[in-house]
Amino acid sequence: MKLYIGNKNYSSWSMRAGVLMAAFDIPFEEVKLRFDFSPGSEWTRVIAAVTPTKRVPVLVEDDGFTVWDTLAIAEYVADRHPEHAVWPRDAKARARARSLCAEMHAGFMRLRSVCPMNIEAFFPDIGQKLWVEDEALRADVARLDAAWSDALAASGGVFLFGSFSAADAFFAPVAVRLSRFGLPLSERAAAYRDALLAHPAVEDWVADAMREQDYIAEDEPYRQSRDA
Amino acid sequence: MKLYIGNKNYSSWSMRAGVLMAAFDIPFEEVKLRFDFSPGSEWTRVIAAVTPTKRVPVLVEDDGFTVWDTLAIAEYVADRHPEHAVWPRDAKARARARSLCAEMHAGFMRLRSVCPMNIEAFFPDIGQKLWVEDEALRADVARLDAAWSDALAASGGVFLFGSFSAADAFFAPVAVRLSRFGLPLSERAAAYRDALLAHPAVEDWVADAMREQDYIAEDEPYRQSRDA
Repeated sequence: MKLYIGNKNYSSWSMRAGVLMAAFDIPFEEVKLRFDFSPGSEWTRVIAAVTPTKRVPVLVEDDGFTVWDTLAIAEYVADRHPEHAVWPRDAKARARARSLCAEMHAGFMRLRSVCPMNIEAFFPDIGQKLWVEDEALRADVARLDAAWSDALAASGGVFLFGSFSAADAFFAPVAVRLSRFGLPLSERAAAYRDALLAHPAVEDWVADAMREQDYIAEDEPYRQSRDA
Repeated sequence: MKLYIGNKNYSSWSMRAGVLMAAFDIPFEEVKLRFDFSPGSEWTRVIAAVTPTKRVPVLVEDDGFTVWDTLAIAEYVADRHPEHAVWPRDAKARARARSLCAEMHAGFMRLRSVCPMNIEAFFPDIGQKLWVEDEALRADVARLDAAWSDALAASGGVFLFGSFSAADAFFAPVAVRLSRFGLPLSERAAAYRDALLAHPAVEDWVADAMREQDYIAEDEPYRQSRDA
């Protein structure tokens, strides 16, 4: 089974799928396609043959069968590996975990647009400025904080539903954004952000991203180069 | 179990959840909240107490437990009703159905923004103009057509995976948009659009929408009133 991903530094959806599979020790071969969409690039040569959506992440089975989109990959992995609690075992917790993942999947658009994931870069000044000026960003973070706090209070665990689940994998890139832009959180939500960042699967991903040392202009609203 | 929805004429996500449950004869009480977000409106008074996202659709169990977002509702219904093939029984078909739903959930943004769902209104002239001028719209429709055609060819059925599944419910509002704006499709995809529109659960929803005779300015880029 191969998981095609983009740049680890930038690709938040790749990170969700990669962290999820790593966290549950599900073996897969990782194939990284650099975010270079120019004619003749490896991306351009490979992606269309792999997936009809031309997006990552995409999971490719040994027989060529493909599963695209992080949510569908999470469900596929859960289906294939019932021995792992990819989703919480409790029916209500499972429904809540899926509600949160679906909300993440199509929401939090302001946070995602003004605070793109860029694992190696820290923007505390920009974060502070955005926090003062951007009401929609504050609303996204307030909703995140409330959603996390509710789940954590209900489970009493370090992760949203007790032990690490797909819902935590879905919020791993958000923890990165919040930390890189230094956005304020309640005490409970901040502790969860830190627990996410300290999970081995997240730490491994972050370490790989730090080693990439690549620069993709389209994903860099705040830097002219890796040095500025 | 209550399903809170918005205007049937406009709310495409409500339609997906409502059609899905109706198609599988799952009993629920429908609670419609008109899309009137002004202070003191029924929406404003009710929605925040029902769901933390303040969005529809949201499923509320008799004990007050809520499931939000159409994707999570589909999974919850599938979990609760294993006697129904809400998702295809075959593992690969199920993974493909979820890939398509997830792609719909976060994609086709151009189609969704320039051809909003408005069941009672027909805009063939605007559709024709958009078709000529809007490359991103044509790309969205081409992708839809290919995705549908691939699934239909593989299943050999009237619906995407043989019998009606959550994937078909997810594309029901798209069939409405395509028909109202008169956008061109391949023969196979057009036959599927028509089969979707002829499904009893879709017909019932459309009939209710036609009876609404409401006008919500925010959802009407092309009409000044119901008469124009």
